[in-house]
Amino acid sequence: MASVGAVTPQQMHFAEPLPLQSGAQLADYTLVYETYGTLNADKSNAVLVCHALNASHHIAGHYAGQPKSDGWWDNLVGPGKPLDTNRFFVIGINNPGSCFGSTGPMHPHPDPAKGGRPYGADFPVVTVEDWVDAQARLVERLGITQLAAVLGGSLGGMQALAWTLRYPERLRHCVAVATAPNLSAQNIAFNEVARRAIVTDPDFHGGHFYAHGVVPARGLRVARMIGHITYLSDDSMEAKFGRERRSDAVGYSTQEIEFQIESYLRHQGEKFSEYFDANTYLLITRALDYFDPARAHGGDLSAAFKVARDKKFLLVSFTTDWRFSPARSREIVKALVDNQVEVSYAEIDAPHGHDAFLLEDPRYHGVMRAYFERIDQNITPQGARA
Amino acid sequence: MASVGAVTPQQMHFAEPLPLQSGAQLADYTLVYETYGTLNADKSNAVLVCHALNASHHIAGHYAGQPKSDGWWDNLVGPGKPLDTNRFFVIGINNPGSCFGSTGPMHPHPDPAKGGRPYGADFPVVTVEDWVDAQARLVERLGITQLAAVLGGSLGGMQALAWTLRYPERLRHCVAVATAPNLSAQNIAFNEVARRAIVTDPDFHGGHFYAHGVVPARGLRVARMIGHITYLSDDSMEAKFGRERRSDAVGYSTQEIEFQIESYLRHQGEKFSEYFDANTYLLITRALDYFDPARAHGGDLSAAFKVARDKKFLLVSFTTDWRFSPARSREIVKALVDNQVEVSYAEIDAPHGHDAFLLEDPRYHGVMRAYFERIDQNITPQGARA
Repeated sequence: MASVGAVTPQQMHFAEPLPLQSGAQLADYTLVYETYGTLNADKSNAVLVCHALNASHHIAGHYAGQPKSDGWWDNLVGPGKPLDTNRFFVIGINNPGSCFGSTGPMHPHPDPAKGGRPYGADFPVVTVEDWVDAQARLVERLGITQLAAVLGGSLGGMQALAWTLRYPERLRHCVAVATAPNLSAQNIAFNEVARRAIVTDPDFHGGHFYAHGVVPARGLRVARMIGHITYLSDDSMEAKFGRERRSDAVGYSTQEIEFQIESYLRHQGEKFSEYFDANTYLLITRALDYFDPARAHGGDLSAAFKVARDKKFLLVSFTTDWRFSPARSREIVKALVDNQVEVSYAEIDAPHGHDAFLLEDPRYHGVMRAYFERIDQNITPQGARA
Repeated sequence: MASVGAVTPQQMHFAEPLPLQSGAQLADYTLVYETYGTLNADKSNAVLVCHALNASHHIAGHYAGQPKSDGWWDNLVGPGKPLDTNRFFVIGINNPGSCFGSTGPMHPHPDPAKGGRPYGADFPVVTVEDWVDAQARLVERLGITQLAAVLGGSLGGMQALAWTLRYPERLRHCVAVATAPNLSAQNIAFNEVARRAIVTDPDFHGGHFYAHGVVPARGLRVARMIGHITYLSDDSMEAKFGRERRSDAVGYSTQEIEFQIESYLRHQGEKFSEYFDANTYLLITRALDYFDPARAHGGDLSAAFKVARDKKFLLVSFTTDWRFSPARSREIVKALVDNQVEVSYAEIDAPHGHDAFLLEDPRYHGVMRAYFERIDQNITPQGARA
């Protein structure tokens, strides 16, 4: 199947501040986004894809002259792919607070008293709901009054769910993959350790490291290594690395690499520390921690989803995902069923843990394809289809 | 049930160097140990208890004037307790490389060229087998030619297993709780992240931080927080902390404590960094990584245990232990059964994860009590018992 080809990110500026859940506001800001496919005449074929922790607006295609710049969900989104860009107009938006172009901690603080220095640790704490609000403004500016679907995996799935609660009239379908109705204590615990690793790195400088010409690379590396362990299943790590050694001879060293899994994790940590912003890591993990739509309803998730009663949902989970296990998706399914919502649920027997949502699994992609075909059939008159 | 009461640690010095698996040797060294109960006339009632990562020789009882100094397995070891000190002579030994009194990285390097400075990062890498060798020398000096049993949990269980492979003639029973025949890739991964957090802390100074009057507390805290997550089950963390907040109001902060689980983990990390040695942490996690008795037999664990054919074993695992899951204990049981070894195996349905081996669970302690009673009956003539 073909890729969407070379793509170009676009920018949209918002002069009106964005009110945030915290009571603060984000002063005038810019969102970077990409689109793939063609918006149809009645603007009914738009699908918003929300990104997770370290992803961005760059979902599909590549940047001209950068052959290794494939979008993070390129296997799912493209012409003839499960989310078919011959049929759908797909939108990816970099969330504010992220570090891939939209206004974030590395951009100048708008307060003149700050002398043009970066926000750093003063970037306001943003929530999943704040991101959805920012996305909704951009979608509105594109002239789209109702999205065919909002799709996301992991933290992206939380955003897709939040759309149905916040703007139920502005979407028809919600596709939430490998997600959860909130973080468990263990999920929060892993986030907290990662954050401690970052903020206690002396190069963090209280979040204002930009001025010092350094980044808290040590903390970011540790944070990413922890994250990676939780993205992979125990089994897939065992299958991929097991106890494989770098060399047959035992090195009897506490610091040299002995096992391939160590080499892999260090490499992942190193790469991450070279491109990811530390303040963004804190902001995004905190948005994960805070997400809890049931909270405003005394912990009753079914009550929370009452407002989304006439939406249609697809939930997908993966058997070996121990970060957001199938049981967490089933909690959402139950809340939807309690509201007699039309919900499809697929539990995919896949070995790859949480990462499975990004991988090309025939059963998983088959479910996604079938669901988007169903959405498409409700958009395009049969006779008009290729 | 009574405690063993006030206890006093003892020291034993070894002038003869200990040859290590690495080919290096440990120059003259001291081991700190404690004993509880009375060695019988024929010295047949001795039980060695091996310690895990952050424990020590101080298994039971307390230190005079220190009411909060209970030994780490005080609920199991004492008069009338499952490992009954009215019947058994129990020995706890602090392993070399640890930081509770036996020769370790904070002790002076024996090379005169080092000018009396601590070993630090130059402490030789020690393995589970090296520890067993050191323990065997001490046991021999006590005049005990055959232990009634060697007992240990987690890393301690690995030592108990190694005893049966290394000194099969010097013990009759092996009791290995919540352990594994080697670390999985995921286990190694968690160890590696913890080590990276420590060695990249600028206060680590390449392992020679003692001279700088600092400790790599940031790294130790993160290491301990990671460890703690793996010691608790997802369920018990959820039951104990869930999403409980410190206060009802949302703080909208990335660094302040919002959730009780964060407070708990930070506290555990803080405490640990105040008493545990960073070099010891590296050494002990590496000993865990290296342990792999099947390796010398081409990965065949059954072949490894052939030498232990006439020993008797009790293996215990806990259903919610995801660090060393029941499946790992079953691998050991299978290897023993392959050798027609007499092995008892109990899989305890306990909610507490890996930590369960340290907790007082009636079913678990019932199994331990019954097994040690059986050992006792083979020591003491029936008529002679109380």
